[in-house]
Amino acid sequence: MAAASHPVVLTISVVLWGCHRVTYLNAGDGAMFGFMRSEIISIGTELTAGMTLDTNAAWLARRLSAVGIAAVRHVTVSDDRDSIRDAVVRAAARAGVVLVTGGLGPTADDLTREALADAAGRPLVVDEPSLTHVRGYFQRIEREMPEANRRQAYLPEGAVAIENPLGTAPGVVVRVGGSVVYAMPGVPLEMRAMYERSVEPELAAQSGGAAMVTRTVHSFGASEARVAELIEDLMVPGREPTVGITACDAVISVRVIARGATRDEAETVAEAEAGVVRDRLGSLVFGAEGETLGQAVARVLCERGLTVATAESCTGGLLAKHLTDVSGSSAYYLGGFVTYGNEAKSELTGVPASMIAEHGAVSEAVGVCMAEGCRVRLGADLGLSTTGIAGPTGGTADKPVGLVYVALATASGTIARRLLVNSELGRGVIRQRSCNAVLNLLRRYVIWDLEIGTDGGV
Amino acid sequence: MAAASHPVVLTISVVLWGCHRVTYLNAGDGAMFGFMRSEIISIGTELTAGMTLDTNAAWLARRLSAVGIAAVRHVTVSDDRDSIRDAVVRAAARAGVVLVTGGLGPTADDLTREALADAAGRPLVVDEPSLTHVRGYFQRIEREMPEANRRQAYLPEGAVAIENPLGTAPGVVVRVGGSVVYAMPGVPLEMRAMYERSVEPELAAQSGGAAMVTRTVHSFGASEARVAELIEDLMVPGREPTVGITACDAVISVRVIARGATRDEAETVAEAEAGVVRDRLGSLVFGAEGETLGQAVARVLCERGLTVATAESCTGGLLAKHLTDVSGSSAYYLGGFVTYGNEAKSELTGVPASMIAEHGAVSEAVGVCMAEGCRVRLGADLGLSTTGIAGPTGGTADKPVGLVYVALATASGTIARRLLVNSELGRGVIRQRSCNAVLNLLRRYVIWDLEIGTDGGV
Repeated sequence: MAAASHPVVLTISVVLWGCHRVTYLNAGDGAMFGFMRSEIISIGTELTAGMTLDTNAAWLARRLSAVGIAAVRHVTVSDDRDSIRDAVVRAAARAGVVLVTGGLGPTADDLTREALADAAGRPLVVDEPSLTHVRGYFQRIEREMPEANRRQAYLPEGAVAIENPLGTAPGVVVRVGGSVVYAMPGVPLEMRAMYERSVEPELAAQSGGAAMVTRTVHSFGASEARVAELIEDLMVPGREPTVGITACDAVISVRVIARGATRDEAETVAEAEAGVVRDRLGSLVFGAEGETLGQAVARVLCERGLTVATAESCTGGLLAKHLTDVSGSSAYYLGGFVTYGNEAKSELTGVPASMIAEHGAVSEAVGVCMAEGCRVRLGADLGLSTTGIAGPTGGTADKPVGLVYVALATASGTIARRLLVNSELGRGVIRQRSCNAVLNLLRRYVIWDLEIGTDGGV
Repeated sequence: MAAASHPVVLTISVVLWGCHRVTYLNAGDGAMFGFMRSEIISIGTELTAGMTLDTNAAWLARRLSAVGIAAVRHVTVSDDRDSIRDAVVRAAARAGVVLVTGGLGPTADDLTREALADAAGRPLVVDEPSLTHVRGYFQRIEREMPEANRRQAYLPEGAVAIENPLGTAPGVVVRVGGSVVYAMPGVPLEMRAMYERSVEPELAAQSGGAAMVTRTVHSFGASEARVAELIEDLMVPGREPTVGITACDAVISVRVIARGATRDEAETVAEAEAGVVRDRLGSLVFGAEGETLGQAVARVLCERGLTVATAESCTGGLLAKHLTDVSGSSAYYLGGFVTYGNEAKSELTGVPASMIAEHGAVSEAVGVCMAEGCRVRLGADLGLSTTGIAGPTGGTADKPVGLVYVALATASGTIARRLLVNSELGRGVIRQRSCNAVLNLLRRYVIWDLEIGTDGGV
């Protein structure tokens, strides 16, 4: 928020949030999370019609919980002025804070500004600083401002604009009944930047220090049921802190949620519980919080000063993409080959055509040869390969869709693994799991200095 | 639905849906979609807290639209009996059909059955066929039925069970006010099977052939506001069919929603309007419906019998990944190089070290050389390259984060383009937009046989 030019917002907020804070636990939503309650409204016919999956509401809910505010209801309405107004008015009647995303674009079907004005019972008026911002945006990219974008500078009278660092649409803070409504763009990147920069600091200040802290521990290599067994006693309903499990592409993540009167207190509890989880899962654990397996591998390679190269068939570039997801990846990632066709396998990674003829492109022999080839050709410490049938076509009785070989080549030998992913999970999942499997093979090899030729628990 | 044992449902449905069909246009959501209106309720604290992303509501909305039913609102509430009851009662007051997912499990926090009974004003009673089903499920997997699962056989008095072919929890059909409420499990696989097998056939029969059809037209190369200008007159609120715009990674998509008394009629209207949109946007259009730019390029390459190779620096495998996202991509994609380090650029794609020293790795000269190198080394018709600064580190005043060169090499010469992506959009977006830019360059070249050396509008 442009605090210097709009100091009024903070004042309004204090008054409103004072009356809406839930200071006790009850049997309803409050008991689950306590503290301040909020509702989230997502706007867009593409959302209600199911064309686009809304990820904003879940993201906001997680962020709200970090500052001790519980999101107790999400509502999604289409681009209809009356429906939006109705949703805002009802949410404001129930919760002290309402977060709205979407409908702030420049086109005729962007109606959130109008609906907020209706909900607040105020007319729309032009906000000069916002108009300057929109004009400035187009000046910077050396284009003329389309007339349509002028609409984005209109706000309900008495509302305050929230600066948009990434786009043209300013956000809006407006009081509706006894509640403060924050409207942000629907584009996730713009919404997240605006929330982090302007909305969250205000909400955090208002939540009076009370906090909920989440710690996530990621593991790979055991099933969800097996992980659940290892931490069964921590997952008893009603226990504090709460511990839950989610699974995605064979990565099993354990989530700890702790709360406390202060952020420090909640963090101490969460960290202690996450420590117990890490101990129980042992070497299955590869990372924490937002870290992906690719990032964990990157970290381990950097720590050891090792370099890696890739040769991909079925993953077709996805493995390299994971290894280069972080800035500075040239420190450990030298380069790679996408050898989708058989000729490329021979040409680029030196797999003999006779080997492909004898064993087939999807075979342990070819996978090993690819890993060794890319390692040698790029002069890397380690080489990784994938070859498999990602489907949906191309499977046979012998080599069904979902069969994948991954390999890790080192100076002292090569380790290969055979995977069989459930073909019904589809091409995208088969490719992702293949990447995860070979990245985890690499991670465990580097950490444990496993001996080549043994199974070694990798 | 177990129609044989529960014939009463169909009769109820006819009566209820008769009064809720919207047979005229009004200014609200009805104008957008018309015909039968529905609302979707998702239940679960893991959803309101943002730990789990709800995919059920979007899936159901798409399926509903295929049988002419508009989902005009989604609501997500936590595992709280009063909140669920309240959401069901309000939705039933607005819509003829309400679909509920979640909260039917065996544990204490599964409260949908209780809340439905509250909403319908009926007590919960045991449903013997459901109890037999739950018992049978455990017999088949040779386990004793946990006492907790007995709860799953309880339904509001007068409600009807929906058979669950994949799990223990039966669904529930119950009348609330003037509306029919269908409650299904939250596990996506179980929900989808139940909906397809039992709920959709009923809804389709009741919608009397009426249908809503969506067509999506994807474009690349102009801003959202510019696309909106081109179809401004089609986007007037209240107009039929409805036309809307969404933007993602610089792909601007126009969505047409048409309805008709029959599916054929709706399809004719939608197709005609999509044709108008395609004419207006001209060469900006690259595809339709679920097609990505990568898939559109794949299609065009297959049609022309052309092959392509890649050499990637800043996109680090993502470009190859897009080109191999579809099954059978070996027909047009021969392979590629991820030349993340400077040595790999020289070694794999033949970029002279002196050129890198003179111009820097991020330069038009190097981009051109990479594209030509991969084309020649893999014997492809076309070569694509990317080199740039994806950030967040590595930028300089001369070459800021977001500066990217993409190039397309052909037998008769090479075209290069310079992009400057807003660095605040982050590494992921910079990499994605670089891919989109070079894929679109390829697409326009192949379609138009652009002359090399001219700007040619590419």
